[in-house]
Amino acid sequence: MRVWLLDAKGEPLGERRSDEGMLCAAGIGFKNVLDRHLAELGAPDNLPVIICGMAGARQGWIEAPYVETPALLDAVLGGAISVPGNSRDVRIIPGLAQRDADAPDVMRGEETQLAGIAELRQPGSHVVCMPGTHSKWVSIKDGAVTGFGTWMTGELYSILTQQSVLKHSVGGGANAVLVSSEAFATGVETGLTDRADLTSHLFGIRAGGLLLGLRPEDAAARLSGLLIGAEIGAAERRYPATGPVVLVGSGLMYNLYERAFEVAGIEARRADAENAVRYGLFDAAKRCGMIG
Amino acid sequence: MRVWLLDAKGEPLGERRSDEGMLCAAGIGFKNVLDRHLAELGAPDNLPVIICGMAGARQGWIEAPYVETPALLDAVLGGAISVPGNSRDVRIIPGLAQRDADAPDVMRGEETQLAGIAELRQPGSHVVCMPGTHSKWVSIKDGAVTGFGTWMTGELYSILTQQSVLKHSVGGGANAVLVSSEAFATGVETGLTDRADLTSHLFGIRAGGLLLGLRPEDAAARLSGLLIGAEIGAAERRYPATGPVVLVGSGLMYNLYERAFEVAGIEARRADAENAVRYGLFDAAKRCGMIG
Repeated sequence: MRVWLLDAKGEPLGERRSDEGMLCAAGIGFKNVLDRHLAELGAPDNLPVIICGMAGARQGWIEAPYVETPALLDAVLGGAISVPGNSRDVRIIPGLAQRDADAPDVMRGEETQLAGIAELRQPGSHVVCMPGTHSKWVSIKDGAVTGFGTWMTGELYSILTQQSVLKHSVGGGANAVLVSSEAFATGVETGLTDRADLTSHLFGIRAGGLLLGLRPEDAAARLSGLLIGAEIGAAERRYPATGPVVLVGSGLMYNLYERAFEVAGIEARRADAENAVRYGLFDAAKRCGMIG
Repeated sequence: MRVWLLDAKGEPLGERRSDEGMLCAAGIGFKNVLDRHLAELGAPDNLPVIICGMAGARQGWIEAPYVETPALLDAVLGGAISVPGNSRDVRIIPGLAQRDADAPDVMRGEETQLAGIAELRQPGSHVVCMPGTHSKWVSIKDGAVTGFGTWMTGELYSILTQQSVLKHSVGGGANAVLVSSEAFATGVETGLTDRADLTSHLFGIRAGGLLLGLRPEDAAARLSGLLIGAEIGAAERRYPATGPVVLVGSGLMYNLYERAFEVAGIEARRADAENAVRYGLFDAAKRCGMIG
């Protein structure tokens, strides 16, 4: 989790980061976790708190029921749910649900990032790529989320490199994919084709190590490229973009996707993930009347 | 591992099964594991032993170097490697390697099953599907393996149901997919399409549980169907069959694939996996002059 202490203009005065996920926070108690971080940040007792993400899940702190697509981002931000039992004003922004029998999907947290990217709330159409454990691709029209999809790219990379037969192939290279790696680029190219036949190419990484001398760092880069390429190829078919794709990210993940878009010949424009969520949270607090 | 005691005609007189995989046997010592099973079966001291599978890997008992494709099955069986240091005649059948830069692949054990299916060693062309942790699809012409591919279907099912976010969705149903399940059939249909977009459909299983009331047993069946359907769809495009696909399997796995082939409208003909490997081993012992 991340906690920011913001001034009256939304500028960060302090920040806390921790590995406490939903299950951990549920165990310790969400209020305990939050109060500890706020105390460390020196937050005044009456400072309101606005939250997004899994704290609003059914198994979270208090359920903030999903808003259904199509969902106007302004309305999502304005619909934060109050958390009772706190001396201060604490609210949780709801997630989004796509209740479509062929492509059911949910998000919690990304809606706030989306709302924090100013251009997405203007008239016009956008396609947004939000890389991560569960990458989201989002179609936005005139400030409303009209549809979205989730690719388990990051989680697949993680369990394949840690739990599958491929762990022998990637060696220590599992977490250090080089953006400039040729193996990454060719992985992306293979993944992009619409008959990518992904699960078969996975074992090819193991066989490549046995037969062709594929080095562990290249095996990791190829796996990363394959999964990201397969995601971009499929998402691009589902959400054809008329302009540049808005790529929301930071760090290595952002750089890998930027390179993959380059390989795919798709124009992408960066939006910083950390700024986006902070802007979205601050705006939600204003919209909900928590701050002036 | 499985050990059979065979009579002079290749009929089984006794059988042993254990969970000892390659890593376990390497730890205890391959010779110790084998000797213990042979003693339990009451095998005479001079009885020859023929082995297939991972015992011939580089990290196995003794390396039986891969035979390269195209590989005549008769020659593979006749090329078993002697294991020194045993009072009896012990040999290991080599695996196959496809040293193709675009589709490198390896098998160990399946070559012996293939050789144990009489029709595959006759003139003519065949496509063979061998479901499992790492499913193999094999193209055979006039008794030779001309090409093959591996789909990590079984392993993906296992790590997704045990290690990923989907473990919450499949509940206790992870290992009990009903062949007759409608969710399995629709999963197969989705997986079969050549734009199956597999990794996105995976998360749809989680969202289906949250939004549409998808039951855990149906979630497991859908996941199984998706993965098997994606395998069959991709493999069929890579290895177009002119006649029925030879489906090598046993138990639930066989039944699921049989149903999936039915959904796909592909004709399949069964070959029993256990008989096949036993016939192959027995024939290898004859070809290598270990028995009369």
